[in-house]
Amino acid sequence: MGSTDRPVSPRFLVLAEQRFDTLYAKTAICAIRYLPGQIAAVIDSNLSGRSVEDVLGFGGDIPIVSNLEEGLARDPDALLIGIAPAGGRLPAKWVELCVGAAEAGLDLWSGMHGPLAADPAVAAAARAAGIQLHDLRVPSRSFPVATGAALDVDALVILTVGSDCAVGKLTASLELAEELKRSGVAALMVPTGQTGILIAGWGVAVDAVPSDFVSGATEWLVLEGASRGGEVLLVEGQGALSHPGYSGVTLGLLHGSLPHGMILCHEPGREHHIGGGLEWTAVPELPAVVEMYEAAASWIRPAKVLGIALNTSEVSEREAHRLVDEARDVTGLPAADPVRFGAGSLTEPILELRSAV
Amino acid sequence: MGSTDRPVSPRFLVLAEQRFDTLYAKTAICAIRYLPGQIAAVIDSNLSGRSVEDVLGFGGDIPIVSNLEEGLARDPDALLIGIAPAGGRLPAKWVELCVGAAEAGLDLWSGMHGPLAADPAVAAAARAAGIQLHDLRVPSRSFPVATGAALDVDALVILTVGSDCAVGKLTASLELAEELKRSGVAALMVPTGQTGILIAGWGVAVDAVPSDFVSGATEWLVLEGASRGGEVLLVEGQGALSHPGYSGVTLGLLHGSLPHGMILCHEPGREHHIGGGLEWTAVPELPAVVEMYEAAASWIRPAKVLGIALNTSEVSEREAHRLVDEARDVTGLPAADPVRFGAGSLTEPILELRSAV
Repeated sequence: MGSTDRPVSPRFLVLAEQRFDTLYAKTAICAIRYLPGQIAAVIDSNLSGRSVEDVLGFGGDIPIVSNLEEGLARDPDALLIGIAPAGGRLPAKWVELCVGAAEAGLDLWSGMHGPLAADPAVAAAARAAGIQLHDLRVPSRSFPVATGAALDVDALVILTVGSDCAVGKLTASLELAEELKRSGVAALMVPTGQTGILIAGWGVAVDAVPSDFVSGATEWLVLEGASRGGEVLLVEGQGALSHPGYSGVTLGLLHGSLPHGMILCHEPGREHHIGGGLEWTAVPELPAVVEMYEAAASWIRPAKVLGIALNTSEVSEREAHRLVDEARDVTGLPAADPVRFGAGSLTEPILELRSAV
Repeated sequence: MGSTDRPVSPRFLVLAEQRFDTLYAKTAICAIRYLPGQIAAVIDSNLSGRSVEDVLGFGGDIPIVSNLEEGLARDPDALLIGIAPAGGRLPAKWVELCVGAAEAGLDLWSGMHGPLAADPAVAAAARAAGIQLHDLRVPSRSFPVATGAALDVDALVILTVGSDCAVGKLTASLELAEELKRSGVAALMVPTGQTGILIAGWGVAVDAVPSDFVSGATEWLVLEGASRGGEVLLVEGQGALSHPGYSGVTLGLLHGSLPHGMILCHEPGREHHIGGGLEWTAVPELPAVVEMYEAAASWIRPAKVLGIALNTSEVSEREAHRLVDEARDVTGLPAADPVRFGAGSLTEPILELRSAV
């Protein structure tokens, strides 16, 4: 992706119109957290005039602006579509904004299922302006059916799994990898979705691969992560086994990566699974979620949940400590919010497992 | 698919070169069983000179021929690629055969992942000859993420599931639908793969849909089956929960169709899952397979396995009876080989469930 005469680390203008303070802005929020110094501004007309720090509690003085023109004044190199709506199509009103950004010389980056290159107006504007389209979700190659080749890697494979979508699997994977590196272990996050690819610069959005090859793509990613020198691979999970829309992706990831252990990610207080029309579902209790993943792993290669990574970003610090204690008590497993309180208690069981296998 | 000036029920020349007597010829074999009168000949140079009946034990005097020229002498309207190799790409030597068939005026039908239309030589030959390309595996539309809409249909939804690929899920679905129709019930097989689509004339190959939408495509199929008047829907299953390559497809189907009950299909004696490099896997024992599917269903909507459909085509009648008895004994469920001994004992629990819900 990208050409050599473009900035390797572009400064992004991040589109998060009307959604920056929602779960649907996870690409925008992860970019702000893990690409520090590369964010010129965020577009959200609902929140314009405030700073990112003011809304998220981190991110410093990155401004929130109300439209493209104000964003261009912040000297970005590229427009990043920071929202991944369910279904993943480019809304009509964003096409105009993408065309305007292209005409202003910005590269366009998107993680949606529907590629930018497939929109005639956007593609024409890109050609005319000579800018690059980066479709992070579009697989760059095809994959074979999985055969269990992940079993043969020397690396320890840890998969982050979840009680729902958008509970912090990518964040936990990145924080665990950083904490392991601080312990001197060559740890690597293995990106399986558009935001992980944006941050790491490689990977495959496995949910965009034909379903026959979702395990095959995951297997390829594990082999690739090992060949990149990862001794502990933190494979970014997707979806949830109890999510009616995405469970197939989740199981494909589990059986393609065939992990040695899992870290379960959870946001307390989530009542039903994310997505329109899913109010009838329930996010199961943590012990039931642990049981699901261990059952599904056992169908091919048994693996245990090693710890619970909580996302407590919506509650007070005092309540966060209570929720961590509660998660530990109900599951009997180490628990932490790796962003808020550090990932050390979760890397311990990973390092123990590494000594044991 | 197809144009109105072509035969609605073409006479197929079926390509099964060197594989007609293997598991990989399931499209060819199902076409012969369920499209009687529409098969002109089968190409397999290993078996040429014999009849289909002689090799399969059914199919009458359909000839097996050694090449395209001999096949054309049997006056076909279309060439059907009757083999679906893992990975699904068109081997180079078949391209020549497809081009020859197109030049002779035959339409081309394929169930492979790689569309005929994507092969430059085949596409050029098709244009030059004015024949139609029918890519059964290529989804004809896009789908939303599933929301559980299958729960709202009035029909009773029965999903066939399996201990492996190619154990007879489509066959069981078709035989159960026929047996239910004989009981006066408006039953309908819901096709989820290329061979089911070939036989029924509608459907979606869910394994070719991007994995984010595999449940959504299945949900759409269930709604479509109900709108076509099916009061009992026999949803064709795919893959197996313990197959490292395909388990994501299998779970997506289960959570997209959200069935009221399942019929478990199994071929006794299968030692490992089908596919190159899968010798290290084991096909689990039947009670363990029942437990897997009931666990996975319970994550969203509980459903029971109602009976066991065995494929005993490879053993003697005496051994088949013993295997049916054994399957019944170890699971405590009704068991039958629906092709060999009739599907009545398996439709009984379906009709009972229909009265109860």
